[in-house]
Amino acid sequence: MQKRRKLGRGAAIVGAGMSKFGMFKDKDSRDLLVEAYNEMLASVDKGIDPKDIEAMWIGNYSNDFWVHQASWGSIVADLLGHTPKPATRTEGGCASGALAFRDGVFAIASGFYDIVLVGGLEEMSNVTLQKATEGLALALDWPYEGIVGFTFPGVFAALANAYFERYGATHEHLMNITIKSHNNGRFNPKARFNASIRDIMNGWIERAEKRGKAVPTWRDEWEFLQDLRANPMVAWPLQVFDCCPITDGASCILLVAEEIAKSFTDNPIYVSGIGQGSGRPLHTTASLTSFEANINAAKEAYGMAGLRPEDIQFSEVHDCFSIAEIIHIEDLGFFKAGEGYKAVEEGLTRLDGLMPINTSGGLKCKGDPPGATSIAQLYEVWEQLRGEAGERQIPNKNLRIGAAHSFGGNGGTCVFTILERR
Amino acid sequence: MQKRRKLGRGAAIVGAGMSKFGMFKDKDSRDLLVEAYNEMLASVDKGIDPKDIEAMWIGNYSNDFWVHQASWGSIVADLLGHTPKPATRTEGGCASGALAFRDGVFAIASGFYDIVLVGGLEEMSNVTLQKATEGLALALDWPYEGIVGFTFPGVFAALANAYFERYGATHEHLMNITIKSHNNGRFNPKARFNASIRDIMNGWIERAEKRGKAVPTWRDEWEFLQDLRANPMVAWPLQVFDCCPITDGASCILLVAEEIAKSFTDNPIYVSGIGQGSGRPLHTTASLTSFEANINAAKEAYGMAGLRPEDIQFSEVHDCFSIAEIIHIEDLGFFKAGEGYKAVEEGLTRLDGLMPINTSGGLKCKGDPPGATSIAQLYEVWEQLRGEAGERQIPNKNLRIGAAHSFGGNGGTCVFTILERR
Repeated sequence: MQKRRKLGRGAAIVGAGMSKFGMFKDKDSRDLLVEAYNEMLASVDKGIDPKDIEAMWIGNYSNDFWVHQASWGSIVADLLGHTPKPATRTEGGCASGALAFRDGVFAIASGFYDIVLVGGLEEMSNVTLQKATEGLALALDWPYEGIVGFTFPGVFAALANAYFERYGATHEHLMNITIKSHNNGRFNPKARFNASIRDIMNGWIERAEKRGKAVPTWRDEWEFLQDLRANPMVAWPLQVFDCCPITDGASCILLVAEEIAKSFTDNPIYVSGIGQGSGRPLHTTASLTSFEANINAAKEAYGMAGLRPEDIQFSEVHDCFSIAEIIHIEDLGFFKAGEGYKAVEEGLTRLDGLMPINTSGGLKCKGDPPGATSIAQLYEVWEQLRGEAGERQIPNKNLRIGAAHSFGGNGGTCVFTILERR
Repeated sequence: MQKRRKLGRGAAIVGAGMSKFGMFKDKDSRDLLVEAYNEMLASVDKGIDPKDIEAMWIGNYSNDFWVHQASWGSIVADLLGHTPKPATRTEGGCASGALAFRDGVFAIASGFYDIVLVGGLEEMSNVTLQKATEGLALALDWPYEGIVGFTFPGVFAALANAYFERYGATHEHLMNITIKSHNNGRFNPKARFNASIRDIMNGWIERAEKRGKAVPTWRDEWEFLQDLRANPMVAWPLQVFDCCPITDGASCILLVAEEIAKSFTDNPIYVSGIGQGSGRPLHTTASLTSFEANINAAKEAYGMAGLRPEDIQFSEVHDCFSIAEIIHIEDLGFFKAGEGYKAVEEGLTRLDGLMPINTSGGLKCKGDPPGATSIAQLYEVWEQLRGEAGERQIPNKNLRIGAAHSFGGNGGTCVFTILERR
């Protein structure tokens, strides 16, 4: 049987927006979505009549569990004034938005629609921390993992220990990720935590001085991160600064058929490859230092794009925990298995490195509202490829190909998307 | 801008399966999905190697809220041994499965996949009735409707009263729906309630006689349905027998590219049209006797198929409540607005009528597990078009075109699918 791995026609991004990510007393996820949507509309260089949007795909992880609202497809269609146009909610843990994006790409490739909105949103910061953690754990294989008390910090702690054991890395290597992410995130005004670790440390010292308390004697960010008073243990070996924060947010992308992209902007960003994979849950997985879902997603995406890992110039990857970033950059082929942590140590993944990773500051700084997070990653790639990333713009002047990697559950769902400026 | 409303290539159904629908002490939704999947595999006339399935879309409404399990894409991929193949969960209330089907159709039409599994499942009968009702109400516009105490029986009761007021129908007209559905459902071994109303009435009388209790004096099913002891009021004017039961179930369909369909069966069923719409929630809708989501879904589907309502020979429609069936058969163009209830009264929608509706017994008899229900409707159309519906086979020997209508929330999401035997 003949295998097709090409789309009938291509899709391009012509607009993108994201809300501020954070915890808000006066805004719910509907407000945040409108914020992202309005920025998206305004970002279309030659303008868009919202009436021309033909269909919507919206990622949301579990607002039904957290804030008593399911069926976000129709809620969003109504909220944005797009009824009676079709709207579908997709869910796959923290990859929920990437699934929306991929379904939107397929819908355009099918020839049925020319202009679709893909977006995502999540609201989880107004529930108790216990309910937030419990809700996230529903993306595990509950009767085998959640029910016995596993939650995500524990899952990734287990992966970190397996990685350390296998490749000889240590927690200091994870700290490189945290410091690098915050060095990028300090330039991202949309991030929940937009400060470097050094800034955070100095703020801590200043507050102690102001309050007349004992002033810590950290000499640099390394000592700060190693101090369990500043950076408490969450699940050994993962400390607070290895974990992305619980956050609300929303994001939107305007996706159109390749052939009409130039009527919206002279600078569209094309979808060159998009792959997806599923993986066995932690308790039956074959490997604790690699995800089969990552491998399959990468294979599909590279195959479709006709590109190799070395063609990708930068990437957002799903760094829900510091260790995750290392595993992903290996699975996606940017670095060899067992060598990701060395590449990070050598600075290769910094903003000015050979392969910048998470220029946005990653989930570590932005936060990780599951439904919104994937589309926010694509937003960062869009900004970088268009040269609009401000102070965190990658210095490479020939930036042409970037990627975003989304990840849900404990390896359950992965999407890898390659975007290109032509 | 040129509008395209044709798919790049068509899709066809070559296999279908559904579990028994009901309440089970010894089975959860994973067991039911395997039941449906195995029947689907066995139904492929020329066989299928499960390894050839390239991707999955799975409808689930809110197992996260009810049984602490989200991310059904990856759960199903693992359960059926399909990792690392991609799997996406879709959600749109009781139309969740139809969204999975539609995304599968687009994925095939895009040229990226040739063979995909679309399915759905739901598990809600093992929670308290309060939690089941609360969970369903999350598909309303919660901050405006759910929070003030609205649940679905109340929503459809309001619609029934509006319809009665506008068109002069009465509750007796709704009873025609119930009697007709059960007359079909008695022949459906997969239905949760597969007995006619007369059977149910006689069973009631027999049990009273056996227990030496006062024997009711109902002379026919009409008197039975009018007796509030047999058929208690739920939300005026809707009584128990106007409402579909809370039920668990699962369903699966094997969808392939049109051009390869004949290598799986000599009798594939083709997807001629598939449309979707969104609607404003009850508290802002323009009409209480019609759904804008229905109208848009029908317009898209008829347009794509190049067919008119009068070309459809039979249809499953989403009869979550008796009144819903009447509104839907009008919105879809089978009968004029305000005349649906008369058509039912005249017997036109019976199995041997001019336009059979819900030959499966509908949700009234099968039950309505939200994630599974849409694919189960398509399963019925598949069985009818292939002449495999047994005792409930439509007598028309020239059956060629059937349809399935799915509906989520209080008008939020609607999908209308036209299937064809060629």
